Amino acid sequence: MEQRLSFITLGVQDLDRMKRWYTEVFGWTPLKNSDGIVFFRLNGCILGLFPAHELAEDIGVPAAGQGFKRFTLAVCYRSEEAVDAVFAALRQKGARIVLEPERVFWGGYRGYIADLEDNYWEIACNPFLDLDAEGNVMTHR
Amino acid sequence: MEQRLSFITLGVQDLDRMKRWYTEVFGWTPLKNSDGIVFFRLNGCILGLFPAHELAEDIGVPAAGQGFKRFTLAVCYRSEEAVDAVFAALRQKGARIVLEPERVFWGGYRGYIADLEDNYWEIACNPFLDLDAEGNVMTHR
Repeated sequence: MEQRLSFITLGVQDLDRMKRWYTEVFGWTPLKNSDGIVFFRLNGCILGLFPAHELAEDIGVPAAGQGFKRFTLAVCYRSEEAVDAVFAALRQKGARIVLEPERVFWGGYRGYIADLEDNYWEIACNPFLDLDAEGNVMTHR
Repeated sequence: MEQRLSFITLGVQDLDRMKRWYTEVFGWTPLKNSDGIVFFRLNGCILGLFPAHELAEDIGVPAAGQGFKRFTLAVCYRSEEAVDAVFAALRQKGARIVLEPERVFWGGYRGYIADLEDNYWEIACNPFLDLDAEGNVMTHR
């Protein structure tokens, strides 16, 4: 299997509300208007929003699930100031701040926010990460 | 918030076993040997494996969670034959096939496999996707 990723799809309860949240709070632009699914093109892969019960049905597994989803997504910035600026902007737009940015033992600086359905986004400055101009992770020292 | 992704981190029950599965079954190369966390560099972002209870603790949320995790990951190939070849290779390595590849109503061809902890990977040929030489998703028509 090639070592790469094309899509991450979040199974959502309320597609319209979640689409609005990602466009208004994150300020992201959907890739196109598709019926019943929403795509955001990121650096080299796509974030999809798709009703959770349809996602489970597509796989052929029970849709029931509760509690911590056991995954996180992260966007890394190049400075602590940039992380603070993102938090300030997200706070102003009403995002739920789960953990204010703080320095952590491994040498980084990070906080967490949650979207409307408890998907956790870490916003971080990770000094061990080399990002290219587009924000692609090139190396992790 | 910039429209990009740096990390997706899977919260795992058994880090050593999951690391072995991704290296042996997917044939992926970890980025480096870190204590207590495993990184795989993908196209522009990193897949991390990290104990689920430590991930929850880092966020500051309860670690309890069960059932469908309400997300999937996907790797898209350029042909149906390539999808079949990946399934054949994964089957030989003992991967759990959840859904054999088949044509789907939206025009693609896809199947699903699961890792040892019920994270679902869709392996697909999506004719609406343009991939560059490295496999980055450039557009979705």
